[in-house]
Amino acid sequence: MRGLLVGRFQPFHRGHLALVRSLRAGPDAEPLLLVIGSAEQSYTWTNPFTGGERFEMIERALAEARVTGVTLVPVADIGRHALWVRYLEGLLPAFDRVYSRNPLTLMLFERAGYSTVRPPLVQRARFEGARIRARLARGEPVGAFVPPAVARYLTQLNAAERLAALRPARDRRAPPARSDR
Amino acid sequence: MRGLLVGRFQPFHRGHLALVRSLRAGPDAEPLLLVIGSAEQSYTWTNPFTGGERFEMIERALAEARVTGVTLVPVADIGRHALWVRYLEGLLPAFDRVYSRNPLTLMLFERAGYSTVRPPLVQRARFEGARIRARLARGEPVGAFVPPAVARYLTQLNAAERLAALRPARDRRAPPARSDR
Amino acid sequence: MRGLLVGRFQPFHRGHLALVRSLRAGPDAEPLLLVIGSAEQSYTWTNPFTGGERFEMIERALAEARVTGVTLVPVADIGRHALWVRYLEGLLPAFDRVYSRNPLTLMLFERAGYSTVRPPLVQRARFEGARIRARLARGEPVGAFVPPAVARYLTQLNAAERLAALRPARDRRAPPARSDR
Amino acid sequence: MRGLLVGRFQPFHRGHLALVRSLRAGPDAEPLLLVIGSAEQSYTWTNPFTGGERFEMIERALAEARVTGVTLVPVADIGRHALWVRYLEGLLPAFDRVYSRNPLTLMLFERAGYSTVRPPLVQRARFEGARIRARLARGEPVGAFVPPAVARYLTQLNAAERLAALRPARDRRAPPARSDR
Amino acid sequence: MRGLLVGRFQPFHRGHLALVRSLRAGPDAEPLLLVIGSAEQSYTWTNPFTGGERFEMIERALAEARVTGVTLVPVADIGRHALWVRYLEGLLPAFDRVYSRNPLTLMLFERAGYSTVRPPLVQRARFEGARIRARLARGEPVGAFVPPAVARYLTQLNAAERLAALRPARDRRAPPARSDR
Amino acid sequence: MRGLLVGRFQPFHRGHLALVRSLRAGPDAEPLLLVIGSAEQSYTWTNPFTGGERFEMIERALAEARVTGVTLVPVADIGRHALWVRYLEGLLPAFDRVYSRNPLTLMLFERAGYSTVRPPLVQRARFEGARIRARLARGEPVGAFVPPAVARYLTQLNAAERLAALRPARDRRAPPARSDR
Repeated sequence: MRGLLVGRFQPFHRGHLALVRSLRAGPDAEPLLLVIGSAEQSYTWTNPFTGGERFEMIERALAEARVTGVTLVPVADIGRHALWVRYLEGLLPAFDRVYSRNPLTLMLFERAGYSTVRPPLVQRARFEGARIRARLARGEPVGAFVPPAVARYLTQLNAAERLAALRPARDRRAPPARSDR
Repeated sequence: MRGLLVGRFQPFHRGHLALVRSLRAGPDAEPLLLVIGSAEQSYTWTNPFTGGERFEMIERALAEARVTGVTLVPVADIGRHALWVRYLEGLLPAFDRVYSRNPLTLMLFERAGYSTVRPPLVQRARFEGARIRARLARGEPVGAFVPPAVARYLTQLNAAERLAALRPARDRRAPPARSDR
Repeated sequence: MRGLLVGRFQPFHRGHLALVRSLRAGPDAEPLLLVIGSAEQSYTWTNPFTGGERFEMIERALAEARVTGVTLVPVADIGRHALWVRYLEGLLPAFDRVYSRNPLTLMLFERAGYSTVRPPLVQRARFEGARIRARLARGEPVGAFVPPAVARYLTQLNAAERLAALRPARDRRAPPARSDR
Repeated sequence: MRGLLVGRFQPFHRGHLALVRSLRAGPDAEPLLLVIGSAEQSYTWTNPFTGGERFEMIERALAEARVTGVTLVPVADIGRHALWVRYLEGLLPAFDRVYSRNPLTLMLFERAGYSTVRPPLVQRARFEGARIRARLARGEPVGAFVPPAVARYLTQLNAAERLAALRPARDRRAPPARSDR
Repeated sequence: MRGLLVGRFQPFHRGHLALVRSLRAGPDAEPLLLVIGSAEQSYTWTNPFTGGERFEMIERALAEARVTGVTLVPVADIGRHALWVRYLEGLLPAFDRVYSRNPLTLMLFERAGYSTVRPPLVQRARFEGARIRARLARGEPVGAFVPPAVARYLTQLNAAERLAALRPARDRRAPPARSDR
Repeated sequence: MRGLLVGRFQPFHRGHLALVRSLRAGPDAEPLLLVIGSAEQSYTWTNPFTGGERFEMIERALAEARVTGVTLVPVADIGRHALWVRYLEGLLPAFDRVYSRNPLTLMLFERAGYSTVRPPLVQRARFEGARIRARLARGEPVGAFVPPAVARYLTQLNAAERLAALRPARDRRAPPARSDR
């Protein structure tokens, strides 16, 4: 048995880490494929970090947390939902169980015959990509929201400056909408 | 320091395994990124196996040979040589040294400022993708050319039948050309 | 003479059926090419059904209504408006007259030298894709808005569940905008 | 039950017509989806006619031969064999049985769980696309190889002139290779 | 030394012309590459004019203003920010300095090692693409905002009619948002 | 009136220069659009130089030969012949007359209603891209085949080394086929 976890990880935050940790806990934990979705996207407000930067930050966070048994795979979008599960099957080794909280992801995998699991919330309101990106864009600290290794890496990338430049005009005053997936 | 090794691995053979093993030998061996190139290609004579099947066969062969410290990443083609190195940089964590015997690959990475290494031949005439695919298509055994775990996996995939169906008409009698890269 | 009717048909509703019926009425009615646009799109809020599902629902609705002489052609987008008419010309048999209510569609075909017709409204406020999708997402009956064969097919597809999962967060409370084309 | 027949039909010849006729013969004949493959290709030596021109010639040939119950669907390539069957499923209404003589097509549909049928040869050596294109390029008559309606349409298109211009230099003297699929 | 100026020029207005003029003023002015971005886009509310129409209007405006030493290059989008600078490098002759007011453009070129310049505002509130498009869509004169040659060309193109057809429903009453880049 | 000349210019040779010069000779010469085709291709045996490198070499050769009135436009392929002329129309300012020796190019423009001209041969056997690339790959001098400015630029690019690396195995001994277009 091997599990599959798909996300965009913009950035990889403490909620993500808690989930990965729980999936890898215990002596019978199955190995995990962690797909970095929309890997070709970067330098946009919704996808500020490249697939490679996200690979790096996740790898560092897992090493810091001593989580093993996770294989990272950056996957570019194909823009066709009906083919997406089949596309992943063509790129990845076999997997059995899919973890996601996204209703569309769950529906597409269920339709293709996979067993799906909707993991419980880990303070989603708190650990949310859009919220963390907005904090970065406003120059506010994000250390409470991301693993320490990610916080250091974001500083190294000058993430605050990047996010400030990418923020759309309409979000300059109001807090960002909760439209992250 | 992290090394990068790019190939199509159609299929992953003993020459590939010997190379990976040598790069991971010794106490100071650097971690290795192994890029499965043309990952979106499959069911053609030159690229018969899906990216996922190649992921699976490499993973099994490395486990069998007890080689660790290798990260597999399937990468689809973008069809533009001049952008390829930059595309890889956007998908992968940082790497420093590139291993290849392909002159084009070496040239493109050198032009982008990378240190490149051309590893010595490991019986290339013997361990060559095109030759192994031709053997499969003719129903000949390939156990002497691929690691045992790959041989078992190829049987499980009915690889011989697949290759026979994909073989172009002009190759049905003559041995295939040595045009593998 | 052959007519062309382009739409996305998400889903095919009674307004669409009334239009097709009127174009095919009378002894001199011209044969009709019905293009299912954005055929590669599916599982989004605006394009929930695959091209094939739309093909199926239109075919069933036309059979039920005993409308003949209509050829269905699913056509994927090319994302370039200036080339779109020429792209259709390359995929379809010759046609002379184009039926549409969409100003952009009319403009593009007129610019390419086609005769265009803007058919009269058939209770557009009532028979509108966005409105029907919103009803489906809220679990409300749609039998008054789509042909009976389509209503049965939507039930068979579990369309209500699909639409509920696809509905964007911002539309969960308010009724959807009238931005359908 | 509905059947599926896939081909490029460059051009639609008497072998194709005989096959379609046999599949539609008898009172229990199933309706047939005829997919015009590589529909976006045209003006090359292997694919000289646009998808629309092929649509037109097939439609005329079927009308002339009084064959009914065939739905023509032009489908553009996606360049990824492993996804191709799933792509067709997303564009077409449901089908059950697949007719082809191409080993790859048969393999891909079988792998996806479809019932496949390899129809008997109808003088393949005689009725073959590559051979007919070569005749056209040399200005030789093709009336014995294509249905009368197609022969007239090819004249109307100035097909001989087009093929002569598209013929690759290496084929100007020797007869073309039998590499048609 | 050669300068690079990137924009969408929907349409080319007096602010653009003033900027190009200032960059080409003086005896030591460097030659200028003017990239017409999103060149493949047209007939949308944000990108109403084709790359060729924009080429034509800029060429006419520069001729009218007797500005020389400017090379126009239409460039289609590639949809991947991280590769965009490298993509331009692959299409254009060498350049040294990049002029832009867009923070993302400046960041991407700086990251690639280019010298960048943020030219001063030329009445941006007044000369702004989105505002001029909205005026066109409402049938209001734009002569005060674009060079005379562009005004004449827009009349020749029936730009007002095109913009009116393209305007999204939500903008029919309210003035358009200032989201132009 | 404006003329259009399309080529790949791999590399720009003396035959190309002679043609451009003749089209720009005389007081009534029309301005010329010179399209650098397959501009996104590079680092292959058939298309070794990037669009930007070709832009640079043509610009230098025209300056050296004091040829003016030529606008260079790099254009990427779209892979669909039937749309290619329309695609060019969407990227370029208006043109009236098309110069080419390629039968396909001439056919496609004629079909779209353009006036075409087939310029006379300028020692084609001698000045041919494939032949010059083969000479470069073998390390032979090419000064007699390309304008002096191009020869210097090729040296600066280390073109000989690049071509040697790109040469396909089958061409290492025999002279390359004459399949250039």
